[in-house]
Amino acid sequence: MAPTYTMAGGKGPNSYSQHSTYQRALLEVAKEKISEAISTKLEINSASNRFNIADFGCSTGPNTFLAVQNIIDAVGQKYGKETQLNPDDNIEFHVLFNDHSNNDFNTLFQTLPPTKRYFVSGVPGSFFGRVLPQDSLHVGHCSYSLHWLSQVPKGIADRNSPAWNKDIHCTGFSEEVAEAYLDQFKIDMGSFLRARGEELVSGGLLFLLGSCVPDGVKMSETMKGMLLDHLGKCLNDVAKEGLINQEKLDSFNFPIYPAHVAEFKSVIEDNGCFTIEAFEKISHANEEFPLDPEFLATSNRVTFGGVIESRFGKEAMERTNELYEKKCPEILPELANAKSGMQFFIMLRRK
Amino acid sequence: MAPTYTMAGGKGPNSYSQHSTYQRALLEVAKEKISEAISTKLEINSASNRFNIADFGCSTGPNTFLAVQNIIDAVGQKYGKETQLNPDDNIEFHVLFNDHSNNDFNTLFQTLPPTKRYFVSGVPGSFFGRVLPQDSLHVGHCSYSLHWLSQVPKGIADRNSPAWNKDIHCTGFSEEVAEAYLDQFKIDMGSFLRARGEELVSGGLLFLLGSCVPDGVKMSETMKGMLLDHLGKCLNDVAKEGLINQEKLDSFNFPIYPAHVAEFKSVIEDNGCFTIEAFEKISHANEEFPLDPEFLATSNRVTFGGVIESRFGKEAMERTNELYEKKCPEILPELANAKSGMQFFIMLRRK
Repeated sequence: MAPTYTMAGGKGPNSYSQHSTYQRALLEVAKEKISEAISTKLEINSASNRFNIADFGCSTGPNTFLAVQNIIDAVGQKYGKETQLNPDDNIEFHVLFNDHSNNDFNTLFQTLPPTKRYFVSGVPGSFFGRVLPQDSLHVGHCSYSLHWLSQVPKGIADRNSPAWNKDIHCTGFSEEVAEAYLDQFKIDMGSFLRARGEELVSGGLLFLLGSCVPDGVKMSETMKGMLLDHLGKCLNDVAKEGLINQEKLDSFNFPIYPAHVAEFKSVIEDNGCFTIEAFEKISHANEEFPLDPEFLATSNRVTFGGVIESRFGKEAMERTNELYEKKCPEILPELANAKSGMQFFIMLRRK
Repeated sequence: MAPTYTMAGGKGPNSYSQHSTYQRALLEVAKEKISEAISTKLEINSASNRFNIADFGCSTGPNTFLAVQNIIDAVGQKYGKETQLNPDDNIEFHVLFNDHSNNDFNTLFQTLPPTKRYFVSGVPGSFFGRVLPQDSLHVGHCSYSLHWLSQVPKGIADRNSPAWNKDIHCTGFSEEVAEAYLDQFKIDMGSFLRARGEELVSGGLLFLLGSCVPDGVKMSETMKGMLLDHLGKCLNDVAKEGLINQEKLDSFNFPIYPAHVAEFKSVIEDNGCFTIEAFEKISHANEEFPLDPEFLATSNRVTFGGVIESRFGKEAMERTNELYEKKCPEILPELANAKSGMQFFIMLRRK
């Protein structure tokens, strides 16, 4: 079993469902782009009344509901224009919500929009493999998920390897570490594209959204990278206090790699199943985190708390988060001068 | 929102997943019948590589895994015989596990058989309505679920109605009560069949298994009916002790109705979408409950504990179960002389 990483479940104050406005803001900006893309690039098969949409890495909602509704609205509009028929009476939308099998699907299912007009499936399983039948999908969507790798890259956690990484992520300052992370990204993103290539019908669209790093910029020069470095320092402080085993921490790495633009493009081209219809930088209202220690600490906890807790225990996670917030003011000046990261909007079309 | 009733979730000692050997025994007997039915009644479309199977009212597993594997094996065998091709290389099975949205799908997804060779979807929603796209299903299955009604029948809980029922289920001894329950069953079973009629492809098969009552027998003359009457007495005892409000109890009824054979057949005929290929009494090893108070109490708790707890609170549920077990010996002689109930195996074929 590969390790799997999911956002904090439930609906409580520290849940992903309550702390995903950042990701939501990107969806809102992407909405227009997706509508336009569907209007111009999607071929509607008016002979079939079935239209299947999947969100890969859907988490618990509510963002995923917004994302799929955007797509449904756009497909409906296009269908209406082309056929002069009411899409509500003529198309049956089936939405497939995919995430790891340990995602909190119960919360997802219990918070489905009461006004939804589509059939619902929860599809458990890693999106690095096939999760849907061949040629069964018309539009796929994946938001803020592709920076998660399937595993920590080989050598990274091994003290005797040249790629051993004492940091908790790929800062960009060690060539060997960066290479190991990139290799893993190529494997994983390749697997993702191969699986989607089999699931999507010919002409089907795949929308990818998320964070990457502009070419020439190192992760730790961006705000998100600096915040991960800050988290690493706090974990080390907690290790010094004795709540975390230092050796265990030294071999700990997050399996995340926000790729550079050129790296991303090259994996898509190597896969060969898709044409790149769009690869754009997009901006959204919440793109720059507010420089507010409490906000940053909560955001960190929701995203990374689960992984930290499962590795080092609940007490260590709580203490780390406490220090994270307390020491945050020290890094605010540095954060204010960070290089820009990048939010990407990618549209692929299945050949 | 209609009230929904689900089996006890999780994997603990009082969970459905640990207490479903009774239902499992029926599946084991049905296996051969299903294999034979698929072999003789199912038309394989060898031009399509997709085969969709749904289990309606799947609960948390593991029974549902056994049920769908039986179907997959039978379809594979038939495919192999007809085409001389290996089904593993040529058919993609997609299994759709359906239950109420408050079913514990997390447990279902986390206990999927590791060796499964099919795509998985969890489909939340009441099976009295459509939950799948039109013409998307090849084989449907529904085991031990159709005695649950969508709601307590009208009038049953109303002191001023002639159908007011002081018992907690339809014993069969009041004509007005029996009529109200039957009316609700006709509505619900009609809705179920209408929905499945739209979801199944022409020629698709629908297997229904569960408990019903032989014509001419009253529910409270069977062991299951007697056990419900016993539960009703215990609830009344707990009300006398003060843990349950007597008035609330007097208007409490389980929304369950194991129909008589003729009633069941008539609803299917009225629906008109299906031919009845089989309607048989089947027997299985666990058909007669062992006359063991501890077993009976646990079985009662797993099946009905959730409804009782949600209506009367945890303490009342615990106390009721305690009394249920303690007073069970009093009814053992009566149970030993109960009239036989009936386990049914129904196979319908979509016209």
